[in-house]
Amino acid sequence: MPYKIREFRQAADLSQDDLAKLSGVSRATICGLESGNIEVTTTETLIKIARALGKNVSDIFLM
Amino acid sequence: MPYKIREFRQAADLSQDDLAKLSGVSRATICGLESGNIEVTTTETLIKIARALGKNVSDIFLM
Repeated sequence: MPYKIREFRQAADLSQDDLAKLSGVSRATICGLESGNIEVTTTETLIKIARALGKNVSDIFLM
Repeated sequence: MPYKIREFRQAADLSQDDLAKLSGVSRATICGLESGNIEVTTTETLIKIARALGKNVSDIFLM
């Protein structure tokens, strides 16, 4: 599952913890999506992460 | 949650049952996503529906 989160997070100079606080998504989920350990997530989670990064879901979920 | 499924399904002259069989997603979920009764779904469900319609997820999930 191609989630493009780490690139945008690092470009915004955010740690996983920072992004977790900003998005309301747990650090474990962010870490899992970035590493590929979590393949399936929900549209709600993607929206929260995308908004926190100032992106659209289509920017961070490349399918 | 803006899911653009009905338009593509009808353009492909598919019933909800047809799309359910093609995608492996239940008709109830397809109906719910089209009507807005189901707001949150999974990336896996979106990929199955998009593929069955010959589209990308970004075509059917406008966020």
